[in-house]
Amino acid sequence: MNSFGRIFRVNIFGESHGEGVGIIVDGCPAGLPLAAEDFLADLERRKGGMQKGTTPRKEDDLPIFKSGVFNYKTTGAPITILFENKNTRSGDYEKQRAVPRPGHADFVAHEKFGGNEDYRGGGHFSGRLTVALVAAGVIAKKILLISNHNHPVELKSSILEVGGETDIDKGLQKAIDAKDSVGGIVECRVRNLPTGLGEPFFDSVESVLSHAVFAIPAVRAIEFGTGFAAAKMFGSEHNDAIENINGKTKTNHAGGVVGGITNGNEFVFRIAIKPTSSTPKEQQTLNWDTKEMEPFSVKGRHDLCIALRVPVVLEAVTAMVLADLMMLEQKIKRVF
Amino acid sequence: MNSFGRIFRVNIFGESHGEGVGIIVDGCPAGLPLAAEDFLADLERRKGGMQKGTTPRKEDDLPIFKSGVFNYKTTGAPITILFENKNTRSGDYEKQRAVPRPGHADFVAHEKFGGNEDYRGGGHFSGRLTVALVAAGVIAKKILLISNHNHPVELKSSILEVGGETDIDKGLQKAIDAKDSVGGIVECRVRNLPTGLGEPFFDSVESVLSHAVFAIPAVRAIEFGTGFAAAKMFGSEHNDAIENINGKTKTNHAGGVVGGITNGNEFVFRIAIKPTSSTPKEQQTLNWDTKEMEPFSVKGRHDLCIALRVPVVLEAVTAMVLADLMMLEQKIKRVF
Amino acid sequence: MNSFGRIFRVNIFGESHGEGVGIIVDGCPAGLPLAAEDFLADLERRKGGMQKGTTPRKEDDLPIFKSGVFNYKTTGAPITILFENKNTRSGDYEKQRAVPRPGHADFVAHEKFGGNEDYRGGGHFSGRLTVALVAAGVIAKKILLISNHNHPVELKSSILEVGGETDIDKGLQKAIDAKDSVGGIVECRVRNLPTGLGEPFFDSVESVLSHAVFAIPAVRAIEFGTGFAAAKMFGSEHNDAIENINGKTKTNHAGGVVGGITNGNEFVFRIAIKPTSSTPKEQQTLNWDTKEMEPFSVKGRHDLCIALRVPVVLEAVTAMVLADLMMLEQKIKRVF
Amino acid sequence: MNSFGRIFRVNIFGESHGEGVGIIVDGCPAGLPLAAEDFLADLERRKGGMQKGTTPRKEDDLPIFKSGVFNYKTTGAPITILFENKNTRSGDYEKQRAVPRPGHADFVAHEKFGGNEDYRGGGHFSGRLTVALVAAGVIAKKILLISNHNHPVELKSSILEVGGETDIDKGLQKAIDAKDSVGGIVECRVRNLPTGLGEPFFDSVESVLSHAVFAIPAVRAIEFGTGFAAAKMFGSEHNDAIENINGKTKTNHAGGVVGGITNGNEFVFRIAIKPTSSTPKEQQTLNWDTKEMEPFSVKGRHDLCIALRVPVVLEAVTAMVLADLMMLEQKIKRVF
Repeated sequence: MNSFGRIFRVNIFGESHGEGVGIIVDGCPAGLPLAAEDFLADLERRKGGMQKGTTPRKEDDLPIFKSGVFNYKTTGAPITILFENKNTRSGDYEKQRAVPRPGHADFVAHEKFGGNEDYRGGGHFSGRLTVALVAAGVIAKKILLISNHNHPVELKSSILEVGGETDIDKGLQKAIDAKDSVGGIVECRVRNLPTGLGEPFFDSVESVLSHAVFAIPAVRAIEFGTGFAAAKMFGSEHNDAIENINGKTKTNHAGGVVGGITNGNEFVFRIAIKPTSSTPKEQQTLNWDTKEMEPFSVKGRHDLCIALRVPVVLEAVTAMVLADLMMLEQKIKRVF
Repeated sequence: MNSFGRIFRVNIFGESHGEGVGIIVDGCPAGLPLAAEDFLADLERRKGGMQKGTTPRKEDDLPIFKSGVFNYKTTGAPITILFENKNTRSGDYEKQRAVPRPGHADFVAHEKFGGNEDYRGGGHFSGRLTVALVAAGVIAKKILLISNHNHPVELKSSILEVGGETDIDKGLQKAIDAKDSVGGIVECRVRNLPTGLGEPFFDSVESVLSHAVFAIPAVRAIEFGTGFAAAKMFGSEHNDAIENINGKTKTNHAGGVVGGITNGNEFVFRIAIKPTSSTPKEQQTLNWDTKEMEPFSVKGRHDLCIALRVPVVLEAVTAMVLADLMMLEQKIKRVF
Repeated sequence: MNSFGRIFRVNIFGESHGEGVGIIVDGCPAGLPLAAEDFLADLERRKGGMQKGTTPRKEDDLPIFKSGVFNYKTTGAPITILFENKNTRSGDYEKQRAVPRPGHADFVAHEKFGGNEDYRGGGHFSGRLTVALVAAGVIAKKILLISNHNHPVELKSSILEVGGETDIDKGLQKAIDAKDSVGGIVECRVRNLPTGLGEPFFDSVESVLSHAVFAIPAVRAIEFGTGFAAAKMFGSEHNDAIENINGKTKTNHAGGVVGGITNGNEFVFRIAIKPTSSTPKEQQTLNWDTKEMEPFSVKGRHDLCIALRVPVVLEAVTAMVLADLMMLEQKIKRVF
Repeated sequence: MNSFGRIFRVNIFGESHGEGVGIIVDGCPAGLPLAAEDFLADLERRKGGMQKGTTPRKEDDLPIFKSGVFNYKTTGAPITILFENKNTRSGDYEKQRAVPRPGHADFVAHEKFGGNEDYRGGGHFSGRLTVALVAAGVIAKKILLISNHNHPVELKSSILEVGGETDIDKGLQKAIDAKDSVGGIVECRVRNLPTGLGEPFFDSVESVLSHAVFAIPAVRAIEFGTGFAAAKMFGSEHNDAIENINGKTKTNHAGGVVGGITNGNEFVFRIAIKPTSSTPKEQQTLNWDTKEMEPFSVKGRHDLCIALRVPVVLEAVTAMVLADLMMLEQKIKRVF
C-alpha cells in the first residue's frame, strides 16, 4: 500500500497540511555515510518558487533524521526521515470542502475513506509527498554510486516536452498566455547498469519500475525504449543486433531491457505528466451539498506545469527500484 | 518474482519446450463453480494457427486440474492448473544455441542464469506461458462476474492498430508483403467497476495494473485514459468535470482513475506491443562461439504479429488485478 | 524486516538512545476514533518505575501523531506515531563499547552491521521499542472491539510465573535476594474470536502469531493450548470433543486452533521470557580490544524481571495479528 | 497463505485424496544439480509403513519435475515438483462426511470454506502435504551444503521423546498397549551457521523459523535454546559468556540466537507434536445431520505416533528458512 521494495523497502507517510511528510527506508545497507547535506541538492531541484510556472508555496524541506543514522552513517536499522510542514494555509481548502476539485483525488478519497480523509490540500494524495520520495531517492542514489566504483551507475532525468513543445520556455509561455496549466513528457536514462537485473515474469524491470513510477502523482503513461512507436515498426527494424559478448547492441530500441531483464545497454524510458489539475481557468464541478454542478475556481498556490518538478522525483523513484533490484541480485553489499 | 497479487495470488511456472506450463492460484474464494469448459473460449482466443499471421504450432491447451477443485467447485485451497506441452520441436532451437536471437531474452537469460537456463524456444521467457495467464484470467473473470449481480463488471480488450494501421488486415498484409513481423496497439476497457479500488501511493490502480501488464511478453508501453496525449493538453481541457454524486464525469480523460483510485467511470488503458522478435527477415547477431557477428535467420514457428493474440491475455491480467483489488476492498466475498 | 502484517501492516523504527522510537500503521480502517488518551492506559501498564524489579528509567511516553489522524479519527492513510526519547544517559553505554554484554544483541549487531550499529543501550534491539508495539496494539484493540458489537473480542495477558514461582512477589523476591535477574511465563487468552481465522499451511494462526511474538525481545518459547504437555498425552485425552454446531468443545487442549484455523473456542497460548540479560551479578565476557575475557558488571538502569512488563506487549502483538487476520477474512470493514 | 520465503520462496498445493500434492520453489539459484535420486533418502525417511506405529498407506512418492530443471540442473526458473496420489481409498472418508473428526481440521475447514472444502482424508490440511515440504527441504539442504565448502552447514533433527518416554520404543509400546495414539518431542540442531542471519524485529530467526514450523501439522509448541526452562533461571545462569572474537560462547542457553540474530553457535530448538488425532479409541463428536453428539471411531489408515515422521519434515522446513535467510544475507550466490 504505502510501502515498496523487496529488500530496499520504502514506506511513505504524511499529508499536505498535517504535521509533515516522511519516509522510513528499511533494508538500507549499514555503513553508508549520510547527512542532511546529502539531500539538499535534490530537494532544491524539486522545490517550487524559483521557476516560472511553479508554486510560490515555500518549505524549508530540511530532512530531520528520527532513526537509523548514527555518527553520520546508516546503522542497518530503519531510517526515518521527517519533513515538517510549516508554510500551510489550510483555510484555502476548508472553504472548498463541499466541492471536489476536477482532476483531483478529492472525490475518490472521500468515497474510499468514507469522508474521513484529510482533505486539506489533497491530504495524503498531495504532490507534497514527493519530497519524501526524493529523500528516499537520495539514499538510493548513494547506494548505486558505491555499488561499482569503476563504472558508477549514472542516472539522469530531463524534460522532453512542455505543453507539447520541446522548447520548455515556449510551452510554459503557452500556459501563461492561456492562463491554464499544461502537462509534459519526462525522460530518464540510466547508464552502467549490470546485465541481469529484473526477475522473470511478474518482476520484470518494466513491471517493478512502472509500479513505482505510477506512485508519482500526475503520471499517466510510461514507455520503455522506443515504446509506443515500436508498435508501428517492423521486427527487423526494431530488433537490436547484439554486437559483442558484453551484449552491446547496435541500436537501442529495447531501451536496455529485453525479456524484462536489463541487457547492459542504456536503460531509457519516458513518462507522460498530465497538466496540473489546479488550473487557474474556471471549471465546472459537483457541489456535494447542492448535488448540482457549479462553477469552480482554484484557490491555493499551484504549479502551472507540475512536470517541471518531476525529473528529480522520477530519478528518485528509479534509483529506489534499481537499488532494490541490485541488492536482490547481490550487486550491492548489505554492509559497506 | 513469479507470483503476483496480495490476496488473489497467481504463481506461474513452466517452459516452452519442457513438460508444460501452469499456474497456482491461491486465495481464490471457495465455492466458485469451475470446470475445464469454462476455459475453452478464452484459450481458443489465445491460440495461434487459425489466423493469418499467427504461428502454426498447435497445442490442445486443455487445462488439467491438479488441486483446489472438488465436485466442480473451488475449495479455498490453491488451484493448480497444468497445460502439457505436446507439440514441441526442440531440435529447431538446439542448433541455434550459440546464437542469441536479436530481440529475444536469450542473451539476458544466459547472463542472468549463468548458462543454466532452458534455452529451448525461449524457455521460461516464452509467450507459451501466456496460456497460464489466460487460465488465471478465466478464474478472475468468473469472480468479477459474481461480485455484483446487478451490474456485473464488463471487461473487453481489442486491437486498435496493427503495424501502424487501424485496419488490422491491412497492417497484417503489410507484414506479409514485407516478409517481416509487425507490432500493434491493444486497448482494454472495463465497465461497472466500483469507486475506491486501488490504494494510495505505491498500490495505485495504475501501479498494480502496469506491474502485471509488463509481465506479458512484448509489451513496451502503457497509457491510462488520454495517456501520452494528456501531456499536450491544457488542464481545463483534460480535467473531467464531475456531474453527479456517483462521480460520473462529462469526459473521461482520466480513464476512470484519479489519484490512483477508480472513480466509477469506465476504466480505459492501452498498451504497445513490439513487433514479434522472430521475424522471417535475415538479421545480424553475435555468435558466442566465434565472438563475431553473423547473419541469422529465424527457425521455428512464429507469429508475424503477436499483438493479435494479446487481447485475451491483457483481459486475463487485468481481471487478475481487479479481482485482487476487489477482494482487498471487500467487494468480493471469500466464500460464495 | 521491520514490518509485519498483510493488510493491517505495522512498521517499527527507532533506537533506545536516539531521537525516539515509533511506528507507522498502514491499512488501518478509516473513521476509527483515535486520540492520545486512548494510549495512556496501555502505555502506563508497560512503563517501568512503578513496580519492584522494573527499571527506574522514566519516559513520558506521550504518543505524537505525525500522520494519518485528522479530526480525532483515522483517515485511511498511514498513521505515524512517534515517542521521543528524553531520559537517556548514553554515557553509561559508551564506556562499555569494547565489551559485548552477555545475553544481549551487542555482539550479533556488531557482526551483522559491521560496527555501524547504534550501540547505545542496545540501539534498535532495545526493549524500548516495545513502546511502539504497545501503540500499534492500542489501535488494533480498538479495531477488534468495533468488529463485533454483540460479542466484542476480549483479549487478556497475565503473568503465570516469575523465577519459577506462581506467586509473583515470591519470584521477584528471589531475584532481589539473589541480586540477580529472573525470567517468567506469560499467558494470553482471547475470547469471542470468530471461527475460520488463519490460512491453510504457511499462514496458520500459530505461524502468524508466533512470527509476531518472537519480535518481542526476550521471548524464547511459545506453546498453544496444552502445548508441550500435549506431547505426553494420549490422543483420546488430547482431542477436544465437539459438542455443538458452533464448534464448542468439551475441553480446550487445542487452545482454540485446529489445523491452523480458529475454531471459535477460547484462544490460549503461553510464552517463556528469559531472565533479563542485564543482571546485577558480575559476569565474564569478551573484550574486543584485548581479545580476552574479562569480568563485566552491568551499568545502566534495568529491570530485574522484564517479564513483568511483557503482558501488555504480548496483548499488543496479539491484537495486531488478530486485527490483520480479521481484515483478511473480511470480519472488519475497511471504513467504519 | 500457501507460500513462504522472501527470496527462496516455496508454494505448496494439493490434497490427500486428490490428484496429488506438490510444490513450486521460486528463487532457487541457477545451476544447482538436481535429480529425482536426490530426493529419495529424505522421502524414504518420511514414509510410513516401515515402522511400528506408522500408517500402512504406501505411496511411491516419486518426485515428478514439471518445470525449472533442465539437463539435471536448476535453471533459475520456478521448480515445480508433483507427487501423484495413487494409493487412496476415499470411500473410507465419504461415509464420515457428517461427522467432523475430533482434533482434525474437518470442522474449521467446513466453516471457513463454506462446505466447499475437499474433505477426503483431511484434503488440503492432510499430513500428506508434508511430502512436498520434504521435497522443498531437499533443495534447500543442497543449497546450504554448497554455500560454504569448508564448513558446510550441518542440520539434524531427532526424536527426544515419544509419549513422554525418552526411550522411543517404550513410548510407542505404551500407545500400542493402550490402543491409543501418542505425541512426542523433536529437536533440531544446526551447526556451522554464519553469524548475522535474521533481521531485526519482525524477521528474527525465531520469528521466521516458527512461522514455517507451525505449518507442519500437529506442532503445538516451539522453544529455542533452553526455552521454557529459561523462565525459571537466573540471568547469571542463563547468559552465555562470549569466549572469543568468533562469538563462541561457554554455554549455549541461547540456542545460537541472540536478539533474533544467529551468533555463530549451534542453533538448537525443539517442538512438541500432539498425539495423532486419529486414535483407534472410540470418541465422542458432533453429527452435523442430527446436531447431536455421537460415538465416533476412526476409519482409514493412520499413524499411532505422527511424531516419528516429523524429524525429516522439521529438517526440511528449517533448511527452507535458513536457505532464504542466507540468500537475503548474500551468503549464497544466485548462480552456482
